[in-house]
Amino acid sequence: MLHFSNTDLDQLTSRYRANLINSCTGYKSSNLLATKSKEGICNLAIFNSIVHIGSNPAMLGFILRPLTVRRDSYSNFKTSGYFTVNQVHKTIVEDAHHTSAKYEKNVSEFSKTKLTEVYLDDFQAPYVAESHIKIGCCYLNEYEIEENGCLLIIGAIEHIYLPEATIHKDGWVQLDKVGTITSIGLDGYALPHLINRFAYAKPDEKTKSFLDGA
Amino acid sequence: MLHFSNTDLDQLTSRYRANLINSCTGYKSSNLLATKSKEGICNLAIFNSIVHIGSNPAMLGFILRPLTVRRDSYSNFKTSGYFTVNQVHKTIVEDAHHTSAKYEKNVSEFSKTKLTEVYLDDFQAPYVAESHIKIGCCYLNEYEIEENGCLLIIGAIEHIYLPEATIHKDGWVQLDKVGTITSIGLDGYALPHLINRFAYAKPDEKTKSFLDGA
Repeated sequence: MLHFSNTDLDQLTSRYRANLINSCTGYKSSNLLATKSKEGICNLAIFNSIVHIGSNPAMLGFILRPLTVRRDSYSNFKTSGYFTVNQVHKTIVEDAHHTSAKYEKNVSEFSKTKLTEVYLDDFQAPYVAESHIKIGCCYLNEYEIEENGCLLIIGAIEHIYLPEATIHKDGWVQLDKVGTITSIGLDGYALPHLINRFAYAKPDEKTKSFLDGA
Repeated sequence: MLHFSNTDLDQLTSRYRANLINSCTGYKSSNLLATKSKEGICNLAIFNSIVHIGSNPAMLGFILRPLTVRRDSYSNFKTSGYFTVNQVHKTIVEDAHHTSAKYEKNVSEFSKTKLTEVYLDDFQAPYVAESHIKIGCCYLNEYEIEENGCLLIIGAIEHIYLPEATIHKDGWVQLDKVGTITSIGLDGYALPHLINRFAYAKPDEKTKSFLDGA
């Protein structure tokens, strides 16, 4: 068993520490955030920090790194009010990762990958046609994390598109049916398969599986 | 392709909507948060919202639901200043899920599962002995999300314990080597395997895999 204390962490090289801290907290969601500038240039960027904020009203959140450098996604959704969240699956993972390359502001990552922009139900922001699960969001708010200048962005979920085969009778979405990817740190990608789904836990009752009953 | 607009979402039953919104944003991390009250009672609770906040200084965050009901984890780490994050793996997933049952404040979830409390390097909060990856954190701050009363909790990472076999030469942790679980929504658990790891993306360069070079 290796042990890193906070003193040990301070002494690591910044790359080693970034890899360790980004990956040790577990698998993360892997999504492409798409926006469009007022000049009509699309931006596509991979995010691994999308979390559930609430279901009524439906909201999600993600962490944005400090605004000390140009952040096209941020300036686009602040101006337009809209962004989309597009799930990464196994056949688009290489192009999804490539969106993290630093292109100039006037270059759309759609033009540098095989990913295709598509517009649904008159929504201002583009979706990724190849993503099986697509979510259209309206920017709601941001909270600055004073410890390091990161922002927590809150978005309202306005549209969800997903294949009928993924959704169970009770609304639960079985992500492995469409090859959804999960990420490890900033550059690792893993493919999960479902092993179980459990009923609501009650004190002193044995955990029940309800994979077949959903 | 199914489509839910925000009007459709409003009309769903609360259970269906909660399942849909919790699961559609992708796989999440699966960790047990452990704390100890000033009376010496441990609390163990499963969280799927732990995200990376920063690596220098090393910090993580997670979303806590509104404080409208008793939240033992919260009152414990606010009083003691400490909590631990313990990774869920495939052989403890059933007990990990069971920690979401609503036990009384004076009942430790360790006593209701086969999970074992262990203390390392004089840290105040207990760790889960069975977890392969354990992180000791100091409570730093909280941000109230005014849209629904949830809190973003920020913790400083003070200790990391992990098996030597999981860590690559550059600090990256290969989670599938120890059967780490990822979650779908509030009750689904999936087991990933690594499919690729890519080099830092550069404009107009083909994405390179460096699985063998790390």
